[in-house]
Amino acid sequence: MAKVLTSRKENYAQWYNDLVIKADLAENSAVRGCMVIKPYGYAIWEKMQAVLDKMFKDTGHSNAYFPIFIPKSFLSREADHVEGFAKECAVVTHYRLKNSENGKGIEVDDTARLEEELVVRPTSETIIWNTYKNWIQSYRDLPLLINQWANVVRWEMRTRLFLRTTEFLWQEGHTAHSTKEEAMEETLKILGIYSEFARNWMAMPVEIGTKTENERFAGAVETYSIEALMQDGKALQSGTSHFLGQNFAKAFDVTFLNKEGKLEHVWATSWGVSTRLMGALIMAHSDDRGLVLPPKLAPLQVVIVPIYKKPEQLGLIGEKVDIIMKKLVDSGISVKYDDRDTQKPGWKFADYELKGVPVRLALGPRDVENNTVEVARRDTLRKEVYPMEGIEKTVKNLLGDIQDNIYKNALDFKERNTFLVDTYEEFRHITETKGGFILAHWDGTKETEEKINQETKSTIRCIPHNHSGEAGRCMVTGKPSPRRVIFAKAY
Amino acid sequence: MAKVLTSRKENYAQWYNDLVIKADLAENSAVRGCMVIKPYGYAIWEKMQAVLDKMFKDTGHSNAYFPIFIPKSFLSREADHVEGFAKECAVVTHYRLKNSENGKGIEVDDTARLEEELVVRPTSETIIWNTYKNWIQSYRDLPLLINQWANVVRWEMRTRLFLRTTEFLWQEGHTAHSTKEEAMEETLKILGIYSEFARNWMAMPVEIGTKTENERFAGAVETYSIEALMQDGKALQSGTSHFLGQNFAKAFDVTFLNKEGKLEHVWATSWGVSTRLMGALIMAHSDDRGLVLPPKLAPLQVVIVPIYKKPEQLGLIGEKVDIIMKKLVDSGISVKYDDRDTQKPGWKFADYELKGVPVRLALGPRDVENNTVEVARRDTLRKEVYPMEGIEKTVKNLLGDIQDNIYKNALDFKERNTFLVDTYEEFRHITETKGGFILAHWDGTKETEEKINQETKSTIRCIPHNHSGEAGRCMVTGKPSPRRVIFAKAY
Repeated sequence: MAKVLTSRKENYAQWYNDLVIKADLAENSAVRGCMVIKPYGYAIWEKMQAVLDKMFKDTGHSNAYFPIFIPKSFLSREADHVEGFAKECAVVTHYRLKNSENGKGIEVDDTARLEEELVVRPTSETIIWNTYKNWIQSYRDLPLLINQWANVVRWEMRTRLFLRTTEFLWQEGHTAHSTKEEAMEETLKILGIYSEFARNWMAMPVEIGTKTENERFAGAVETYSIEALMQDGKALQSGTSHFLGQNFAKAFDVTFLNKEGKLEHVWATSWGVSTRLMGALIMAHSDDRGLVLPPKLAPLQVVIVPIYKKPEQLGLIGEKVDIIMKKLVDSGISVKYDDRDTQKPGWKFADYELKGVPVRLALGPRDVENNTVEVARRDTLRKEVYPMEGIEKTVKNLLGDIQDNIYKNALDFKERNTFLVDTYEEFRHITETKGGFILAHWDGTKETEEKINQETKSTIRCIPHNHSGEAGRCMVTGKPSPRRVIFAKAY
Repeated sequence: MAKVLTSRKENYAQWYNDLVIKADLAENSAVRGCMVIKPYGYAIWEKMQAVLDKMFKDTGHSNAYFPIFIPKSFLSREADHVEGFAKECAVVTHYRLKNSENGKGIEVDDTARLEEELVVRPTSETIIWNTYKNWIQSYRDLPLLINQWANVVRWEMRTRLFLRTTEFLWQEGHTAHSTKEEAMEETLKILGIYSEFARNWMAMPVEIGTKTENERFAGAVETYSIEALMQDGKALQSGTSHFLGQNFAKAFDVTFLNKEGKLEHVWATSWGVSTRLMGALIMAHSDDRGLVLPPKLAPLQVVIVPIYKKPEQLGLIGEKVDIIMKKLVDSGISVKYDDRDTQKPGWKFADYELKGVPVRLALGPRDVENNTVEVARRDTLRKEVYPMEGIEKTVKNLLGDIQDNIYKNALDFKERNTFLVDTYEEFRHITETKGGFILAHWDGTKETEEKINQETKSTIRCIPHNHSGEAGRCMVTGKPSPRRVIFAKAY
């Protein structure tokens, strides 16, 4: 099989795009900036959804569904929110088309203009808090812990498959609480769920931390995020959890009677991860041969390929394969036998490497004789021959090993590419040459943050929760800094 | 607890609306015609989704995701399709809002007008077949068996929660085949899945059949549907499966090289069920006290309520309940213990009846002494005392009985309300007095179909597949009719 991907060294952005397309994950659609998520890509997203959904339900959340449209006036109700979201959104102005008068095609029917325009939701705080107003009267109605799986639209100018698309899929949690403390606890609980999901399922280590005011969600009091490091040294914000204070409760007049019989505004959180996680997953582990998937999220964990010359050999191999398949399926492992005679084994090997199937078994006539199987792992590309006896245990252990190994690799990479920097000169040097996470001191002002951004294209990814908070002096202004923050160029 | 629902006799439409609202299933939103699906309603929908999704996957289908927007010109490509769907749809004309010049609120930015307007998908045949063009080259790429779970928008003038809403949730399958026979087989296979799902999961008997030309999906060669009978004698179309012939392949120029190396147009099907099924489920079984849910789709199958006067009694009851809960959960039964002290048992009983929880267990001090439990079933409202010993078997059997019993009741109702009618006079009489499914002869013309519709508000629901096809004469014109068709007033 010919080389199908641009190498990462050659052109990282092109490698990513090639991979998404050629591994059948997604493609651009006829609608500017909107993608088609293909069955193989969607199967990975479904696995992610299932895990996250269970984590949310296990922590007391329920799913619900709110309208895709938001009345234009709702967006203006929260002052910061409108600045952040009103600008680039899809606006529905009419509700009917008619046949064109020239007889060709159809056109907008001007008599069917909406009194108030509707915005296709870029996020749902406003429509949801307008609804919560009727659901919350007393402290007994709280907490309200709701999540929604939905599509949202933000009119992005420059789009990239999964990473930034006009329409994307996500979950958005919207919770209501009677106290500030409880809302803050919820915000951080979700941040913990996101980080655990990234680590244990996506095999992707993340930094967790607090966003600066500049990078805060429009309408939030505090925004927290998980930040992952991609192989090109750029950061990817992979999930955010917002403490909204009483901002939306005040904007939509949502109050409750507390236990003492006094009226108070409700406290809020919102949080989300999106199909952007697909981009993170792809970039965190994959190589020049294609996808590398953590076994826990791989739609197909094992593929079996027969190696034979004569048809009668295929029959004998097939008998052994039946036995192996049954053992694997009984152990909860997903497996496919690819006995197509239209493609050669080498072609199949390359194709399953491209698709990131974690384990490949190959059986030839000699394996049938010797009761052995050739086992290849996608992450290291190593092959080994194992006895057929106990193959289900071999494969189960191997899947566990692969999951651990790709996490370890990603963690090593992150550690090797995290730099403690004290001077702006060194900062600029590393930013230009290596990228990565840079832990540096900053004076806490917007001005310095913007100056650094303009001069180096780096942003403050977060004020990290898991790094020691020793004080120092801002690398740019020399003013006091209470602790280091994480800088990086970012997606 | 005061009577919360209008009775069915008094006002069936009001009863339905009361029930949807008061059982916390859904409510109207601030956006005209769009609903909010509340957590309890959404939990039922999720159960439906999970079952259907498995049925689709077990028959070889994969999920994918296509854009929510459809370029206006796409709709015009298939001549019948545009007539059916271009008329009432949400049209996106702009992609930006700006601050109003008067400083109050925001307004559409006229400089951000789309070159071509986008329609919010009313259904996705056009955007999908435009995509399939690139996916299909050879017979080896076929069949393509894809499903999508999505939201769609149709600008309905009169809306009713779940039954007809501007935005609704659904699944839409879109398959591509190399032969007419295979596409037709797929169309009918899905019709079978829908009918099996209605019967075995929703406990709802349906008629399956072919739609008349008048009632056909815009762009289809044949439309098949499942039709259920509601308690007010009106029919509810609950799912449709379309054989699209080569219409969309021709409109979007989708061809393939067949085994003989000749270029042919691809054959297509599409099929869907929506949140409308929620309306069907509610109306098929519920009564004046509230929801009656088939145990297989109930988010909560069993609730346990303690009956006590003194706090120390609650402690003893709680110990027994722990044991019962464990046994039920181990048997795969969902169960909740409601020991809130803010509500009396009678209030709780009424509330769980309203919500349709299939089985209620009550335990008092005497039950603790005697090792017994009071078991009440929602469908018949009968109560009986059972020994604690083997309670998990008792409940498991009871859940099965309830599932069977509500199906039997619905089937009895359908049979009692299906009429064989030979004269138009009798037809009009039954239509006006009883409703129901009416099996009558029809001459096969649009004119007669429309006359009957205008005079009686009845429509032909389908040409049934499961009723004998004896020939006769049209009840209106006396012309020959090859077989009876099913008429009804419909939602």
